[in-house]
Amino acid sequence: MATHAQVSVTAVSKVIRNAYGVSPAMKDRVKTAIEELGYRPQAVARGMRGRTFTIGLVLPHIRNPFFADILDGLTEYLESTDYQAFMIQGGATRKVELRAVDALMDRQVDGIIMVAPLASKARLEEVAKEKPTVVLARHERSSYYDSVFDDDEAGAELVVKHLIELGHRRIAHITHQDDSQARPADLLHNIRSATYERVMREHGLGDEIAIATSFYHEQGGYEGARELLSRSAQPTAIFAGADQAALGALAAVHEAGLSVPADVSVAGYDNIHLAALPNIALTSVDQDGAEMGRAAGKLLLERIEGRMTPVRFSVTPSLVVRGSTAAPGQSGS
Amino acid sequence: MATHAQVSVTAVSKVIRNAYGVSPAMKDRVKTAIEELGYRPQAVARGMRGRTFTIGLVLPHIRNPFFADILDGLTEYLESTDYQAFMIQGGATRKVELRAVDALMDRQVDGIIMVAPLASKARLEEVAKEKPTVVLARHERSSYYDSVFDDDEAGAELVVKHLIELGHRRIAHITHQDDSQARPADLLHNIRSATYERVMREHGLGDEIAIATSFYHEQGGYEGARELLSRSAQPTAIFAGADQAALGALAAVHEAGLSVPADVSVAGYDNIHLAALPNIALTSVDQDGAEMGRAAGKLLLERIEGRMTPVRFSVTPSLVVRGSTAAPGQSGS
Repeated sequence: MATHAQVSVTAVSKVIRNAYGVSPAMKDRVKTAIEELGYRPQAVARGMRGRTFTIGLVLPHIRNPFFADILDGLTEYLESTDYQAFMIQGGATRKVELRAVDALMDRQVDGIIMVAPLASKARLEEVAKEKPTVVLARHERSSYYDSVFDDDEAGAELVVKHLIELGHRRIAHITHQDDSQARPADLLHNIRSATYERVMREHGLGDEIAIATSFYHEQGGYEGARELLSRSAQPTAIFAGADQAALGALAAVHEAGLSVPADVSVAGYDNIHLAALPNIALTSVDQDGAEMGRAAGKLLLERIEGRMTPVRFSVTPSLVVRGSTAAPGQSGS
Repeated sequence: MATHAQVSVTAVSKVIRNAYGVSPAMKDRVKTAIEELGYRPQAVARGMRGRTFTIGLVLPHIRNPFFADILDGLTEYLESTDYQAFMIQGGATRKVELRAVDALMDRQVDGIIMVAPLASKARLEEVAKEKPTVVLARHERSSYYDSVFDDDEAGAELVVKHLIELGHRRIAHITHQDDSQARPADLLHNIRSATYERVMREHGLGDEIAIATSFYHEQGGYEGARELLSRSAQPTAIFAGADQAALGALAAVHEAGLSVPADVSVAGYDNIHLAALPNIALTSVDQDGAEMGRAAGKLLLERIEGRMTPVRFSVTPSLVVRGSTAAPGQSGS
């Protein structure tokens, strides 16, 4: 930019800031250059400081209100800074996600936050070597990016133990499938699923393990629950790995002519706002998405400022018990 | 860029495309220049064509799944093009929305799609004079931007007439308030609200008009319905101007110990996926968000290609009757 106009960076800066000590001729040369290049003053000023003051947020989709909680926290954190968050939809396949991340790199964002990405750790590290990166909802350790995640093992254990303590034995689980390239143990849905199996076994309920592999969205939960309810050993409780799936499971139970929680208890994960509505009253795990969003923003800005040592930030989940879970055969609150 | 490297644009293009006929020395010079400027080849190649191949989508927030429908349509349309959509949260105030739009302009997107913006028509036209612009969900006529909207008057009329035909008289409405600078008649919630009042009057029900002014989200619908249900003339039907608010209204009815639709019918607008779940079964207005998203993408690309004459694209809504509405005092399906 300054090269193009044959003027010094300081002069450009002065012109943009309307500072004193710039000759009218110099002002004209800079302004012509700016016009020629089609840049807006603000973008130029920012570019001069070597930053675009934009960060890219890659979300798998925008259908899960839990992602809105994350965005709220991030937006709140960025409010007092000069940074602005752009979102891009990572989509349901690695190919689309890759294209989205490339697009962010092309637009020269200062840093990238990826929520539950499908890419391999190696690919994420390639991104992180080029741009400061924070990864949400993945558990692997990397030397190149920061991680913000919920202790999914603790959260899933809270749900399964809660159901066992209520007296349930036939507790089923709905999990999620994707085309991720990550190690299975680094993915939240696999951790929740494996924890369900472990806790069941630890309580002598290994034979009762019943998993429907579906998707973490309403339709997925609906189909998963229908499948589970059609089995000869019908579950008395269903733990859906995400609230979006639990909403679908509630619908399937209702449609089967069964009542919640008298016939079937249902629990989810994420504690989305809808879970608190009295006609849904879903027992769920709160993992404080806003806190995760704030932490991701803070860590990313630290990285942009030059921190290289990786940080792992984990939120501790808590169980929120509501009317959708009760002892088997009993009516809930 | 080409100026900086002291090489021709054609040479840069050839180097980037790895084409024949470029000397190793030239290749080095171009590559050095690219590195020096910190550009990625793809961004350079795009910049050379004068486009960034990114479009900005301004959404008020990402909590309404109807916006996800719009994004799905837009993404589907863009898939076969070179364009990528970036989203930015416009927020709940004009100030935040303004900052978001400025950020998009700074990042040199090729065009902007704004969903239900709060800005005045004059401000939107300023944006549209600088960048190709499509505005969704606003009804004003502009010479500078394209409009994509639902026929909100037709949609609201469908709901109110449906409730009247079922035999309801005490039909209440929940509307939305914002700090918009638009003419009231250009805003979808005001159109839905005014239509409710008009249809009520046309059917001799002017005295029964009861409006709760709240927000188009769960909590807003919950509070609006609580207020309406506490009135001495308790409504037998509630038309919430958006499904998100209707979900909250369902919760309030339930919490008041009343049943849907036996005691109170509830209808919404948007036909979000959740409305179809059998335990929600919300009567709603379908306005085909995906079609609106596709149309917005198509119109924006036409504008980017040079079309200057404004286009208005309107989708015709349809009523989807489900179990949440029935004749007063009767049990639904």
